[in-house]
Amino acid sequence: MANSSPVILVLRPSDPDADLRTPPGLDELQDSAEIRFTTASEISENIAGVDALFLWDFFSGALQDAWPHADSLKWIHVAAAGVDKLLFEELNNSEVVVTNAQGTFDRPIAEWVLGAVVAEAKDFAGNYRYKDQKIWQHRETKQVQGSKALVIGTGAIGREIAQLLSAVGVQVRGAGRRVRENDEDFGDVLLSSELTEHIGWADVIVNAAPLTPQTTDMINAEVLAAVKPGAHFLNIGRGESVDQPALIEALRSGPLGFASLDVFDEEPLPDESPLWDMENVLISAHMSGDVLGWKHSLAQQFTDNARRWLRGDELNNVVDKAKGYVPRH
Amino acid sequence: MANSSPVILVLRPSDPDADLRTPPGLDELQDSAEIRFTTASEISENIAGVDALFLWDFFSGALQDAWPHADSLKWIHVAAAGVDKLLFEELNNSEVVVTNAQGTFDRPIAEWVLGAVVAEAKDFAGNYRYKDQKIWQHRETKQVQGSKALVIGTGAIGREIAQLLSAVGVQVRGAGRRVRENDEDFGDVLLSSELTEHIGWADVIVNAAPLTPQTTDMINAEVLAAVKPGAHFLNIGRGESVDQPALIEALRSGPLGFASLDVFDEEPLPDESPLWDMENVLISAHMSGDVLGWKHSLAQQFTDNARRWLRGDELNNVVDKAKGYVPRH
Repeated sequence: MANSSPVILVLRPSDPDADLRTPPGLDELQDSAEIRFTTASEISENIAGVDALFLWDFFSGALQDAWPHADSLKWIHVAAAGVDKLLFEELNNSEVVVTNAQGTFDRPIAEWVLGAVVAEAKDFAGNYRYKDQKIWQHRETKQVQGSKALVIGTGAIGREIAQLLSAVGVQVRGAGRRVRENDEDFGDVLLSSELTEHIGWADVIVNAAPLTPQTTDMINAEVLAAVKPGAHFLNIGRGESVDQPALIEALRSGPLGFASLDVFDEEPLPDESPLWDMENVLISAHMSGDVLGWKHSLAQQFTDNARRWLRGDELNNVVDKAKGYVPRH
Repeated sequence: MANSSPVILVLRPSDPDADLRTPPGLDELQDSAEIRFTTASEISENIAGVDALFLWDFFSGALQDAWPHADSLKWIHVAAAGVDKLLFEELNNSEVVVTNAQGTFDRPIAEWVLGAVVAEAKDFAGNYRYKDQKIWQHRETKQVQGSKALVIGTGAIGREIAQLLSAVGVQVRGAGRRVRENDEDFGDVLLSSELTEHIGWADVIVNAAPLTPQTTDMINAEVLAAVKPGAHFLNIGRGESVDQPALIEALRSGPLGFASLDVFDEEPLPDESPLWDMENVLISAHMSGDVLGWKHSLAQQFTDNARRWLRGDELNNVVDKAKGYVPRH
């Protein structure tokens, strides 16, 4: 073990039986780096002398607690698209570069959204409900083509969603931090700070925004009161972007018609949540992006970036820590 | 009422409270035709002297029984895509022209298929099952992009399905009566008489074929035994094209993984059908094409064709009675 090799610390699950506890492909890096392992509870003891940290496992505030010991840290790679749970002030103010898993989840999440949009239009929820009761019940359903979708969040995931929905004849607009016209994916991009004004246009509303101070509670009671009666709300961003009690109320008493939710303000969704019992809700366990092989893709994305880092090349997917996401080029 | 006016007989539901019992828009035809009404049970008494018959209501063998009284009939328009329940030998051998509702259902059915394909890949059935039990259960799901779909039936509905699936990155092939290469929608079209040989290629198998002697029981135990393990079978054609006991067996013991069924060999699906209790089945009440406004579209399609007929123009959607469907131009 050469003292001069950069040190990469891999945060992995504490459960020794966890599926793919150790990310595959690290051996490719062993000639040029020293690989160490830790778990969230031991990160304070293991972060001294570490040059790069790979957050392979889910994490909470562990890194913030360990921060005073991070004496050589230059780069953190997160095997997730959202970095909201990672960022804290000392990290944001430091020179440490943060990269994420942007790209891996775009297509799977966009497919999930497409499927949920069509499933709602065709009332698949009703199919399962009637099936449980062995009831043959003909209904008239909705056409997807020509319906209108507002995608909140104009990052890579929002763009992939816009492309897939457009491909099947849905009319799409975006909502983001800046107004744009003639955007290649959205056409019009409206201000997500003015949702109340714009949201009534849409039959389908998709939250694909990262969680930032601006997007926290962005979809609140006032916004929800302004949706088109019967509209379908989908959330694949973060639960905290939505005022969940207001969402439940809008699903119970209108104007919302249906919600397809992959993320929640508390996960796992607690037993006592009224959402479990609501007929007009699809619940998915924060898995819309997790297709078979996703962990291998995430590991591959890290080793690709690590090779760039070891060569001194520019890193992929560098997060703008002030913004809280990877800005579009 | 001029004796010279052609007579159009409209077969409508016997229930006086049926939704849209009388097709809208017939008044547009009243200057140039005499409109009469009947129900299925009274058609024998009402068909004499009738020039055109509009089957607005569902029908069974009523017309065959009334056939000896059909002394002036020249044209039958059916407000449905499948004409298998209409055609009989005397009609087939007659000069009477049959037209159908081709076109109205293409896009809605294709959307239903797309939704069911994505819903299966993302295990929405599991979402509803876990929701009933308030279980938060993360799973890895399948990517739709790059999967392979064999669409059996290369008519208008099959083509619309191929287009929508291709639009979201599914690799599509067709199966039909004639081999074709470089087909604009399917690329390769294989023989539907050789399904056993070709079906193992597909992750997704869609039956969109009309019911004819050739397609009756086409998807039998031998064909089902040859599917790729875990494959998803969808039926939006006719239930009689599938050996339903063999389908149930292939869903129970493999190799089929899932079935999304909108049509059945007996409809409504009887209470005692094992399909109701099977977790890997989506059941829809023969409604995949019936979007809001579908009845207005069907009525409009008839009045458009009736105007052509009254003017002596060529009719749209003329069924090849020997083949049992509208051939492609």
